[in-house]
Amino acid sequence: MDLATIIGLVVGTILILLGCAGGSLSTLLGFLSLNSVYITIGGSFTAMLINFPLERFVRAFKSVRWAFFTQTYSLEEIINTLVRYAEKARREGLLALEDEIANSSDDFLKKGIQLVVDGTDPELVKNILEIEIGFLEERHNENKTFWEAWGTLAPSFGLIGTIIGLIQMLRNMDDPSTVGPAMAVALLTTLYGALMAYFLFNPIAAKLGIRSQEEVMIRQVMVEGILSVQAGENPRIVEEKLKSFLPPARRENVGRDRIEGVGLHV
Amino acid sequence: MDLATIIGLVVGTILILLGCAGGSLSTLLGFLSLNSVYITIGGSFTAMLINFPLERFVRAFKSVRWAFFTQTYSLEEIINTLVRYAEKARREGLLALEDEIANSSDDFLKKGIQLVVDGTDPELVKNILEIEIGFLEERHNENKTFWEAWGTLAPSFGLIGTIIGLIQMLRNMDDPSTVGPAMAVALLTTLYGALMAYFLFNPIAAKLGIRSQEEVMIRQVMVEGILSVQAGENPRIVEEKLKSFLPPARRENVGRDRIEGVGLHV
Amino acid sequence: MDLATIIGLVVGTILILLGCAGGSLSTLLGFLSLNSVYITIGGSFTAMLINFPLERFVRAFKSVRWAFFTQTYSLEEIINTLVRYAEKARREGLLALEDEIANSSDDFLKKGIQLVVDGTDPELVKNILEIEIGFLEERHNENKTFWEAWGTLAPSFGLIGTIIGLIQMLRNMDDPSTVGPAMAVALLTTLYGALMAYFLFNPIAAKLGIRSQEEVMIRQVMVEGILSVQAGENPRIVEEKLKSFLPPARRENVGRDRIEGVGLHV
Amino acid sequence: MDLATIIGLVVGTILILLGCAGGSLSTLLGFLSLNSVYITIGGSFTAMLINFPLERFVRAFKSVRWAFFTQTYSLEEIINTLVRYAEKARREGLLALEDEIANSSDDFLKKGIQLVVDGTDPELVKNILEIEIGFLEERHNENKTFWEAWGTLAPSFGLIGTIIGLIQMLRNMDDPSTVGPAMAVALLTTLYGALMAYFLFNPIAAKLGIRSQEEVMIRQVMVEGILSVQAGENPRIVEEKLKSFLPPARRENVGRDRIEGVGLHV
Amino acid sequence: MDLATIIGLVVGTILILLGCAGGSLSTLLGFLSLNSVYITIGGSFTAMLINFPLERFVRAFKSVRWAFFTQTYSLEEIINTLVRYAEKARREGLLALEDEIANSSDDFLKKGIQLVVDGTDPELVKNILEIEIGFLEERHNENKTFWEAWGTLAPSFGLIGTIIGLIQMLRNMDDPSTVGPAMAVALLTTLYGALMAYFLFNPIAAKLGIRSQEEVMIRQVMVEGILSVQAGENPRIVEEKLKSFLPPARRENVGRDRIEGVGLHV
Repeated sequence: MDLATIIGLVVGTILILLGCAGGSLSTLLGFLSLNSVYITIGGSFTAMLINFPLERFVRAFKSVRWAFFTQTYSLEEIINTLVRYAEKARREGLLALEDEIANSSDDFLKKGIQLVVDGTDPELVKNILEIEIGFLEERHNENKTFWEAWGTLAPSFGLIGTIIGLIQMLRNMDDPSTVGPAMAVALLTTLYGALMAYFLFNPIAAKLGIRSQEEVMIRQVMVEGILSVQAGENPRIVEEKLKSFLPPARRENVGRDRIEGVGLHV
Repeated sequence: MDLATIIGLVVGTILILLGCAGGSLSTLLGFLSLNSVYITIGGSFTAMLINFPLERFVRAFKSVRWAFFTQTYSLEEIINTLVRYAEKARREGLLALEDEIANSSDDFLKKGIQLVVDGTDPELVKNILEIEIGFLEERHNENKTFWEAWGTLAPSFGLIGTIIGLIQMLRNMDDPSTVGPAMAVALLTTLYGALMAYFLFNPIAAKLGIRSQEEVMIRQVMVEGILSVQAGENPRIVEEKLKSFLPPARRENVGRDRIEGVGLHV
Repeated sequence: MDLATIIGLVVGTILILLGCAGGSLSTLLGFLSLNSVYITIGGSFTAMLINFPLERFVRAFKSVRWAFFTQTYSLEEIINTLVRYAEKARREGLLALEDEIANSSDDFLKKGIQLVVDGTDPELVKNILEIEIGFLEERHNENKTFWEAWGTLAPSFGLIGTIIGLIQMLRNMDDPSTVGPAMAVALLTTLYGALMAYFLFNPIAAKLGIRSQEEVMIRQVMVEGILSVQAGENPRIVEEKLKSFLPPARRENVGRDRIEGVGLHV
Repeated sequence: MDLATIIGLVVGTILILLGCAGGSLSTLLGFLSLNSVYITIGGSFTAMLINFPLERFVRAFKSVRWAFFTQTYSLEEIINTLVRYAEKARREGLLALEDEIANSSDDFLKKGIQLVVDGTDPELVKNILEIEIGFLEERHNENKTFWEAWGTLAPSFGLIGTIIGLIQMLRNMDDPSTVGPAMAVALLTTLYGALMAYFLFNPIAAKLGIRSQEEVMIRQVMVEGILSVQAGENPRIVEEKLKSFLPPARRENVGRDRIEGVGLHV
Repeated sequence: MDLATIIGLVVGTILILLGCAGGSLSTLLGFLSLNSVYITIGGSFTAMLINFPLERFVRAFKSVRWAFFTQTYSLEEIINTLVRYAEKARREGLLALEDEIANSSDDFLKKGIQLVVDGTDPELVKNILEIEIGFLEERHNENKTFWEAWGTLAPSFGLIGTIIGLIQMLRNMDDPSTVGPAMAVALLTTLYGALMAYFLFNPIAAKLGIRSQEEVMIRQVMVEGILSVQAGENPRIVEEKLKSFLPPARRENVGRDRIEGVGLHV
């Protein structure tokens, strides 16, 4: 679980509700307006429908869950596994890797090693795996773009709602005592739009982007490692190379002497 | 048909009209102002005329229809077809592909295979097809740019209209009871400009961009496939390579065992 | 002539004047203020003087005429001419092209063919012509940047003028009846700045950019063609290659059977 | 110590406090509002939690210290050291460098020279060191992005707080004498958000970026030097090459005749 | 001298002062406020101290002088000189150039020719000179970035000052006659910030950018010329190549027949 997202959502919501209430429940209820919901959420949602094809909606809504989960396996594990593969391949030949990947749960690593075991040309292995990473990145990016687009449209429709409210108010200024409350209602859509954008959509888009970077990095380490294994490089060099992908502080957890018994069942 | 665009347009329009009306038809009619239409739509349209040559208008208006249609054929079909070509070319030679493409309705695929059948140098085939994709992308992008430009100019002219209205109002503040309604009218142009930009032009531009990506992707798969066919690559490798262009979930629909009887008459 | 620019300017000006007048000439005259002209146009112009060297002003003002003219010769003509050159060079040798270009009015094409006739190394020909295109693009871009910069400075000085007006007004609020008109005058500079930017400078900058793209494209087709001629490529291939630069709908106007008698006297 | 950061912080804080106080302590105290702190700092902080994983917080907060420290060693020292290595390697062989780096405190330089001493292939040395620099740059950039993100969210939540305050005020306009003070309080969040962004987060992000550039530059000089040492280049050429990384005014401090006795214990 | 900068500064300042005065000296004096100076200039300056290291300040302030000076020598001169070098080198050998550069005042040209005379490998000559140009560009760019950063911070602190002023005013609305003047003072900081940014910092940053482009272009022509000289290329080709860097209208001033007696003592 990504605790940050959950703490952020819970504490942030409480802070905003307290800020709106200012100590009184009736004040808080005054911040609720169905009409404003229709204009801001409804309006921006319909603009999103014009903006994106339906299938992108399904994928984008599904992708939100990645904002709540952390990586399931670490770079360190991956590197240790790949160094182990390099040692095994050097000792027992590339074919010996077939058993290793049989029970691996990671399709990408499986596919890459399988291509190597099949004797595919290294250039082609690299090519196929990089196309795969490229499209992975693009699919991730499409989801990020979706939430960023909504993060732009929501405040715009908040503004549209406020202008509509102002126009309605300005046409009926006979009773001055209604001007204030009417303007308060008009401003609600701006508030809704801003909260949707700055508290939800933009931060979620950003976290999806970070998740994507982590995932892509893991894939790149895998490609680098698979190609080194195929080239029959010295495991020490493989380790040295892959460790460059880690921040210095985390490099201690990686090494040939730590490989035994770690066993990455990815 | 792209249902999302149509649902978005219909439901969005209803929501906005309901929001403006606030339950009363006369209120809704108050949101209609021919003068505001002249300034916002007319003004931004004439700025667009200074911005773009006439022929770009015709193309851009025609391109709007792509926001309402989905792709006519899928990546899966294309890949199956290309794998079939690869098998046929390997069994019967490149010339055998001439019959295959005779009844193909896709000019790009036709041109590519024809070049291969004519024995054109692979580097040149790639070169010609990539120039073609490049210009396809550029033409698409020109239409996108057109709608984005209007999406920027419309709110600007909305603002200009509001400033004009404010200046007129401020010069005639003798009768306080007219100040409110006059300001309401002044705000109408801002509302029109914002709706044009955020509900129509920007989302349409974005959907045209997505359509362009889909189209370009199809062309790239075709180029990759055509070159593999020309190189006489193993159909299994061709399939593996082209499948990388698909999201994992859709890869099951592609395969040599599914080719028989599919027949893409693109 | 580029009709779009002219229609846009004339109709747009009429629309804006009508909008300002609101049916009364005296109202329209109220929108004229010399002081506002000084601040908005004068102020932004002096900032432009700090921004750009004097010689850039001359060139930028001269470049405006390109917003009013369309291309003088078409891509189709260029392609037909280059295919004709390819045929002649193949039949009669490269030296035969010397007569062809003698009466050409296009210096770029002339220079390129002359280099080929002189037996310059192809790599060097390409190099020289591409440097030339690069600087052509840069000079075009400098003019575009000039108008975009003014398009940014004009609304900024409009705002500065309005703030100055507001400060003057706020200091003298003894007579409430003058507040409205004084604020109206203060807003005039914002109006002037916005109109300058959104109705003139930005659209002109954009059209200059489009003209530049067209011009650069023509040059790129020429380079591609000149190099093909030098390489002695088959005219059919030359035609096929250059046609890729055209949108499909316009490709019918190009072809070896249409070359006779066309004669591009560029 | 980076005096600029400290002077900026101290003097800036005093200036802003004096500006708020306007000569009276009670006025200054009026600028303090716990509720506004909750909304602006609390709200934007919780949005940051949704935006970034927890571990990025720790690293980003730690990175702030780099805005307060200057580089610990200069480009000149590095260049002199590398030229000295080049001379020693040429005279006594690459292995002689092992003693030199034994007491070096810079892990990057140590690793690079060690790889050279081990006889690693130059292409691989370059590859490993550049991957390392790439990730160093990325980690730096992540911290910069963190503070920039907060610099964007803080004013947004400032605005949200002001809208909430305005809505509360507009609902209770019975007593006109409270309107002013209520609006003053509403504006406080905008002030807090703007100060956080423009006085703290954005400048800190920018200084972290500059520190990163300096650091990366030092690493690049090291790579260039290490590779020259490995290639056995003439120390005079090595010096000439590395001096290009220095601004002309600082080149006098570098040179073979200045090497004796300098001794970089990095 | 760059007349544009000086005319712009003088005329612009007069226009703005006239605009503020509106015909009365006392009105003009009302635009002067020391407190506003503290907040806008002082505040943004302290934020700049947090933003940049101290040494960047010195360099950035020094660089302002380049906004007031035009290039000291022209591209035409450089080209003529380089063509002359090419002729001399071809006739009398590379060593003959040593005398030519002895009294040259341009360190870059001197260094380049010296490297050639010393028989340095062409690839290395190019490498060294391009690193030099790269860092020249970066140092220029750092100064540009400095002024752009202040151009962003100044209006931000102008806004902060206005918000502080508004809050102070809103707390003391007992005497309505003070509201106007107090708001006028509050707006002064916005005016100061906007003038600093749009009339000074941004235009100066832009002109520094243009100066940098001119300077870099001159260096690039030098590199191109030095390498041609080293390669012993035909002076006619050297001339043709370097002339591509000039706009067509200025090419007539360059040529071998114009070289005698020109003598660039750069």
